[in-house]
Amino acid sequence: MNFDDFKLDERGLIPVVVQDDENDQVLMLAYMNKEAYERTLEEGRMVYWSRSRGELWRKGDTSGHVQYVRSLDIDCDADTILARVIQVGAACHTGHRSCFYRRLVQMDGSESKK
Amino acid sequence: MNFDDFKLDERGLIPVVVQDDENDQVLMLAYMNKEAYERTLEEGRMVYWSRSRGELWRKGDTSGHVQYVRSLDIDCDADTILARVIQVGAACHTGHRSCFYRRLVQMDGSESKK
Repeated sequence: MNFDDFKLDERGLIPVVVQDDENDQVLMLAYMNKEAYERTLEEGRMVYWSRSRGELWRKGDTSGHVQYVRSLDIDCDADTILARVIQVGAACHTGHRSCFYRRLVQMDGSESKK
Repeated sequence: MNFDDFKLDERGLIPVVVQDDENDQVLMLAYMNKEAYERTLEEGRMVYWSRSRGELWRKGDTSGHVQYVRSLDIDCDADTILARVIQVGAACHTGHRSCFYRRLVQMDGSESKK
């Protein structure tokens, strides 16, 4: 399955869920266009499309916090990629290992709710 | 932090990465609007906005494969939610536990690549 088989959003991008291959922590969500995807495969490290800067974002070029690809999976409707990576340093620009460091809600005993 | 503080996409939606609280498997990516988010908090089970059907999607209503909320986290730039859930049955409509059941790429020794 190639990039041209993926179902892209209105911007021609596909979201990528990034998971730490060492401990299964979800690190971040980013986006790829075709060039970012192909560069990722060629280089074996994660390359994204930066929506804010409007340019290719070779993760770690500035920070040193490179992400080496372990595997890429595509979901059932081919509109999301799951990447398992070896994360050097921190995924988040704030210095946190994961971008998801702020808890909104913590439920207890929610299993029994209807 | 409330839904109105989140950074929504052009459609007024926020993506939600859904992770199995039992084994840390990434199950799916879905989207919420404000109503879906508020219903999720009220009911303690995941309610999404279906982009294809254009309506609220109370996960499990048809399939029985309900997702009970364990926690919700927001990322650094407040444009993605991470949900940890108790998954009843399978997250994917294909019957797979996770929607990410198709491998695109498997790397070996990619750590040493530059």
